[in-house]
Amino acid sequence: MSSKKINLKEKFSKFTQHWSPKIIAEMNDYQFKVVKIKGEFIWHNHTDTDETFLVIEGEMVIKFKDNKVKLSKGEMFVVPKGVEHKPFAEKECKILIIEPKGVINTGDAESDLTVDKETWI
Amino acid sequence: MSSKKINLKEKFSKFTQHWSPKIIAEMNDYQFKVVKIKGEFIWHNHTDTDETFLVIEGEMVIKFKDNKVKLSKGEMFVVPKGVEHKPFAEKECKILIIEPKGVINTGDAESDLTVDKETWI
Repeated sequence: MSSKKINLKEKFSKFTQHWSPKIIAEMNDYQFKVVKIKGEFIWHNHTDTDETFLVIEGEMVIKFKDNKVKLSKGEMFVVPKGVEHKPFAEKECKILIIEPKGVINTGDAESDLTVDKETWI
Repeated sequence: MSSKKINLKEKFSKFTQHWSPKIIAEMNDYQFKVVKIKGEFIWHNHTDTDETFLVIEGEMVIKFKDNKVKLSKGEMFVVPKGVEHKPFAEKECKILIIEPKGVINTGDAESDLTVDKETWI
């Protein structure tokens, strides 16, 4: 049994890009990804799956068409499948995303922010 | 779109029992559970699924038959399915567990610590 633990702070220290999810762990067919976000993302949804956001450091907003939710460190939110959302962070925010393997960061909406092949860190 | 966020600290403030997972969120057929642990759990494994531990506050150890891993705040570990493990915490430790709906806390090993029906908090 390998005893390789995952330290979130150490993972975040390894990259600087925004909106570029890095895979840090797998559980069955799900993945854990660390992401640094800053500024506006794009409107999108994930047709086939819910998506979980957990804020590790900083503050973010998830905008919905009719509402929004502000998340601070230690707060999480599960965006239901099919729901249009747009993440936003005024200052850099560090988050953990949990979702099934193969989910594309921009969901149904292709853009310059789309990461075709997410990598491990 | 409901904008009900989940605050981990607030969830932990709502109960005192040890080794009694409380469901706080669902993502597809997976659940997020907060647990306070202290002392020794029992040896067990989950035949059909991996199980993720993320330490929110404090320190814990996951013992394996041939090894162990010590986790502090901000550290996580995915126990692969079928692997015997025994969580332990010298002092109270607050953790987030992520695993499929329906997983029993003591896995294949029934004991006084088995929680038959985990509840939401």
